[in-house]
Amino acid sequence: MTRPLRFTLEGTSGAARAGRLELPRATVLTPTFMAVGTRGAVKACTTDQVAATGTRILLGNTFHLALRPGPDLVKAAGGLPAFNRWPHAMLTDSGGYQVFSLSELRRITEQGVVFKSPYDGATIDLTPERSIEVQNALGADIIMAFDECAPFPCTKDEAASAVARTTRWARRSLDAHARPGEQALFGIVQGGVHLDLRQESAAALLELDLPGYAVGGLSVGEGPEAMDATLAGTCPLLPADRPRYLMGVGKPEDIVRSVLRGIDMFDCVLPTRNARNAEVFVWPRGVLRLKHAAHAEDHGPIDPTCDCLACANGVSRAYLRHLHKVGEIAALTYGSIHNLRYYQRLVVALREQVLAGTVDAWAREWLASGAPAA
Amino acid sequence: MTRPLRFTLEGTSGAARAGRLELPRATVLTPTFMAVGTRGAVKACTTDQVAATGTRILLGNTFHLALRPGPDLVKAAGGLPAFNRWPHAMLTDSGGYQVFSLSELRRITEQGVVFKSPYDGATIDLTPERSIEVQNALGADIIMAFDECAPFPCTKDEAASAVARTTRWARRSLDAHARPGEQALFGIVQGGVHLDLRQESAAALLELDLPGYAVGGLSVGEGPEAMDATLAGTCPLLPADRPRYLMGVGKPEDIVRSVLRGIDMFDCVLPTRNARNAEVFVWPRGVLRLKHAAHAEDHGPIDPTCDCLACANGVSRAYLRHLHKVGEIAALTYGSIHNLRYYQRLVVALREQVLAGTVDAWAREWLASGAPAA
Repeated sequence: MTRPLRFTLEGTSGAARAGRLELPRATVLTPTFMAVGTRGAVKACTTDQVAATGTRILLGNTFHLALRPGPDLVKAAGGLPAFNRWPHAMLTDSGGYQVFSLSELRRITEQGVVFKSPYDGATIDLTPERSIEVQNALGADIIMAFDECAPFPCTKDEAASAVARTTRWARRSLDAHARPGEQALFGIVQGGVHLDLRQESAAALLELDLPGYAVGGLSVGEGPEAMDATLAGTCPLLPADRPRYLMGVGKPEDIVRSVLRGIDMFDCVLPTRNARNAEVFVWPRGVLRLKHAAHAEDHGPIDPTCDCLACANGVSRAYLRHLHKVGEIAALTYGSIHNLRYYQRLVVALREQVLAGTVDAWAREWLASGAPAA
Repeated sequence: MTRPLRFTLEGTSGAARAGRLELPRATVLTPTFMAVGTRGAVKACTTDQVAATGTRILLGNTFHLALRPGPDLVKAAGGLPAFNRWPHAMLTDSGGYQVFSLSELRRITEQGVVFKSPYDGATIDLTPERSIEVQNALGADIIMAFDECAPFPCTKDEAASAVARTTRWARRSLDAHARPGEQALFGIVQGGVHLDLRQESAAALLELDLPGYAVGGLSVGEGPEAMDATLAGTCPLLPADRPRYLMGVGKPEDIVRSVLRGIDMFDCVLPTRNARNAEVFVWPRGVLRLKHAAHAEDHGPIDPTCDCLACANGVSRAYLRHLHKVGEIAALTYGSIHNLRYYQRLVVALREQVLAGTVDAWAREWLASGAPAA
């Protein structure tokens, strides 16, 4: 059987890694940041604008897409990348996280999760088998096993129970996977901030010999120190020759710290959500709040070092502040493009520092600089 | 003194004209359709997306820009085209139309109009001198005289009074114009549907020897037959060697009819507003309502004959319907780009037909085809 994923480590620096991820629709250099297109589009952007930021993997949310427009329609379009005209690689999540974080009236059993659709109140079953069936229809390059993401905080017993269920559901996800030659199924290591549970979870998932592994259940309120400690204990448990994906992360400083621990892939709504709130990132580290009066007469670009569509074209802080103040959609578009480009520049810089063997010093200086992206 | 505008008639077909309009920032082939960037941006589009539709003149609204962000800020940015990074020509209206159509608590005197800002309730004076001062600061290639646009319907006495005041205000606008070598000031012919008043208005404005003339006060409820009859009577009153601009028009069929009467320039919010309402134009004539269930499983483009970013990239009716249904901004962007491109294709086709001497037959067939763009 052909393999849908080939991962080559091109360099390491301490635990940090630079790699090459070959997928059916794109070859992606790692570390990589994936843009989030929840409902089949990155908010306020066209796909060509997202591609122009250097983004090479786009994430689609199985939970949302399963409800609207539904997997059958997307499949009939030729899969999600054909449906939304994305020219590079895609990843779909399993829907598990949204079921646990968004749904009202959900009921969890060993079989799966029953919840009410936030669109029309219809009762929906989501099981490992159904999640994979939907993801097979969506047709992304990478798909995710259906997992139970325990809430934070929770008791250790609850975390252990979620780990055990996640292991059983990963096996069922693998068994249900009908397109293993075309779509790479990743397992998700759970266990909260408990390293013994993370070890148990990783060991069980490694038995499935999956093409990639994700770390789930972080960035849910545990704080940066606990996240860093958990990654420091978890990454060494994962096979060196497989990509490692830290789900839903995160702030730029989270990404810098996590690359140092050995993470290769990230996704987060932060760059586009912040842009819609008129917050834009500046290199190397910092955030501008465009609505502040300080920017009212600043005719310079968001970031003179940036080569995004907005900055390269001279779109100014004063202009963006004006657009935000009067409610023009273009403000959200320019900011989203800029912030996505900032994230791409960050992962490219991290990659270059890893390849040069200098990422530790670079990251230490970076983390000591600027204001945290609050 | 240098002239900021040079207009060359390249061909005529009956009353219809094809021309070349040389402006400081662009050479524009006519008939031309100008995109509306009310508050300094075309809604849901970046300027590069608008330019890619073939649009060569962007309109800015003096009323809105005078209030937010204010002319001083735009002037400090280097003018409106520098502020919003528009690479081609611009036109600003005088603010008159918005004062009359949008403002609460306005008071009209011979001096000008006093109104309350819809942003903060502040009392604002807008006079011919102030309108031109603001437009000189905004720095567009074409600026408009401050006029009184009478409501529709109104008595003939009211229409006559508005004509007389528009004439006096046009003289004051010309006297106030501080950048005649860089910005072409257009006069606005008023008179409602009364051809004797249109004649009086045109004759008085022609004495000012302005580089271009607009027809104002149409598309305000008089209906297509009255508009057409008014243009048939008014266009012959205007000098053949100056561009003619029909303000705020319109639907595709209005544009086709008005080109036959001798109009060269148009602007309207319709293509972008309709796009935000999920209505898109199809060639040669028709409207698709993307939210209709009929499009749910239609994986073809909006219009297979269209070369806009969306259609050329295979963005489908089913995808756009989905994006509209779930409230994604990208739906508005794709639709706006498509509709602006449709309008550009329409004026390009009209120009080609004029140059070929076949525009009457073409327009007759076009007007008899398809459904009106309701």
